Amino acid sequence: MTPPSRKALVPFVSVQHMMNLVLHIGVEQVLRDLAVEIEADFLRWEQFDKTPRVASHSDVGVIELMPTADADLYGFKYVNGHPKNMKEGLQTVTAFGLLADVHTGYPVLLSEMTLLTALRTAAMSALAARHLAPENATTMAVIGNGAQSEFQCLAFKAVCGITTVRLYDIDAGATEKCARNLVGHGLTVIPCTTPEQALEGAQIITTVTADKKNQTILTDNMVGSGVHINAIGGDCPGKTELHADILRRSTIFVEYPPQTRIEGEIQQLPADHPVVELWQVMASQTKGRTSTAEITLFDSVGFAIEDFSALRYIRDRIKGTPYYVDLDMLADPDDPRDLFGMLHRSA
Amino acid sequence: MTPPSRKALVPFVSVQHMMNLVLHIGVEQVLRDLAVEIEADFLRWEQFDKTPRVASHSDVGVIELMPTADADLYGFKYVNGHPKNMKEGLQTVTAFGLLADVHTGYPVLLSEMTLLTALRTAAMSALAARHLAPENATTMAVIGNGAQSEFQCLAFKAVCGITTVRLYDIDAGATEKCARNLVGHGLTVIPCTTPEQALEGAQIITTVTADKKNQTILTDNMVGSGVHINAIGGDCPGKTELHADILRRSTIFVEYPPQTRIEGEIQQLPADHPVVELWQVMASQTKGRTSTAEITLFDSVGFAIEDFSALRYIRDRIKGTPYYVDLDMLADPDDPRDLFGMLHRSA
Repeated sequence: MTPPSRKALVPFVSVQHMMNLVLHIGVEQVLRDLAVEIEADFLRWEQFDKTPRVASHSDVGVIELMPTADADLYGFKYVNGHPKNMKEGLQTVTAFGLLADVHTGYPVLLSEMTLLTALRTAAMSALAARHLAPENATTMAVIGNGAQSEFQCLAFKAVCGITTVRLYDIDAGATEKCARNLVGHGLTVIPCTTPEQALEGAQIITTVTADKKNQTILTDNMVGSGVHINAIGGDCPGKTELHADILRRSTIFVEYPPQTRIEGEIQQLPADHPVVELWQVMASQTKGRTSTAEITLFDSVGFAIEDFSALRYIRDRIKGTPYYVDLDMLADPDDPRDLFGMLHRSA
Repeated sequence: MTPPSRKALVPFVSVQHMMNLVLHIGVEQVLRDLAVEIEADFLRWEQFDKTPRVASHSDVGVIELMPTADADLYGFKYVNGHPKNMKEGLQTVTAFGLLADVHTGYPVLLSEMTLLTALRTAAMSALAARHLAPENATTMAVIGNGAQSEFQCLAFKAVCGITTVRLYDIDAGATEKCARNLVGHGLTVIPCTTPEQALEGAQIITTVTADKKNQTILTDNMVGSGVHINAIGGDCPGKTELHADILRRSTIFVEYPPQTRIEGEIQQLPADHPVVELWQVMASQTKGRTSTAEITLFDSVGFAIEDFSALRYIRDRIKGTPYYVDLDMLADPDDPRDLFGMLHRSA
């Protein structure tokens, strides 16, 4: 039996490979790199084929496909969101993704994306904050200390120069876990016992909770003027974190309006409520923050281009490393019309 | 370093595994089994979450995602269609697919689907013909003798009792290849040099060509009364095989109208032209063929439920076999909130 040809093989990055690669490069360096990659793609926003993600909802969660493409590369991510998973010892979010060559339709990378999504989400948040947060912000409150929280803290350190994080979770064990994991990473970490305490002195507020319902993690009176809010957790229909009054006081920045209107905090607002597209801020086509008193809000839901950027980064960085294996995923008969002959000759 | 737990591992069926499994079961038995699986799912059509596939078009081809779900399982297929690939020594169509548990969002199977798509497409065609073709049909014309053609011939033998196939392709080499591959499979194979010759005495006409444009593989005067047409190749916008006059003389059966209106032969007709949903014929909610003179046309484009059925079949059949490997595709920290800790402890 002859082995499959190069064309039939797709590089696969497992979870273990991804961990090895990230530790090899360094977590903060990966976060900085991803912010650079995402910004580069946001700056050429109009070159992408864009669509809201395709969601399949059940009573307990959602499974989504997030495709996008430029003229050369096609990418998509499979991702689930099952908040009840945690109690069963499973991840709330797992993901994997694929890049393919637009010219042939052949996949060129398959990769785990549970870790990569956490990294790219944090890099995206920090990138948005670099454009929107008050100048010289040093302190971030983090409400929700689950699987995403440490990545958020390190991204804001690496990309925005945050030096202090103030942690709060309804589960004190989560806060303790986050604080413990951040030891030795050069951040001043302050565990808090109330959300109000966490917000004290914070110029940036990150909300990153997981419950799939309309919550009020922040009420209007908790949010002072001039802060930047990085709202991560409200990312599917019926799942929000902020009181609508906060939204009405804020200038709202989004990734891709057709998706955010359905999934983001702004699902609480009329469909014509004004929002600013983040890529236009990056491209200097419109303004970001315009005053020190303004409340800026990044209503983050996660968009396919961010995954595309992250997958392309991984594809480039695994070259020449041992951090992938080749999968025999594509049929490759000698004569492309002869799929049946390939099957029979394999006997 | 501890290996990942069971929960983090996803069974993967490579091309080689698929070939081994199919040969182990027997090609015709697989085709019969797939027809049974697809029919079982079509009979519970209303239980599925359905959406037209999500297509990303370029000048040279298309990349599509085809998701569907029932209450317990979610499935999707990645598939490309690049007619120009053949000249470059590549497959026109490659595919892979995934099944996941709706309750957790965790993938439970990743599989090659280039071969599996050829098998399920043929099984679907034969299943439709079993409901629509003239009784006691024995002869099928096959126009287009590329990668799909042998699978079509064997499915119609295994599922519908076809004994004779009459082959035609504009490339005589393709016909020769198809005829050679069918030697020893119990079919009378008649290579033809014109489409007209191929149609002589055929009760079933299969068109399965690959060019991405509006072709006229069959003109109206070539199609006599009473035949069943199995139109496979017209399966994306701007890609059709039949003259519109044939459509107007036929009773047209489709898989999922919202998708077929965009992609099938009926893209040539007004959007309100009557079509019959095949699942309703199977469920005896409406009639299939009503007279011996009627021309029945299965305007096949391929629907996500067929892939779902095929993936579920593979998941069931690989149990206890050596025809898969486990992939470390899902992050599985001891504490599901502690993704970051898992990363750091892997160092």
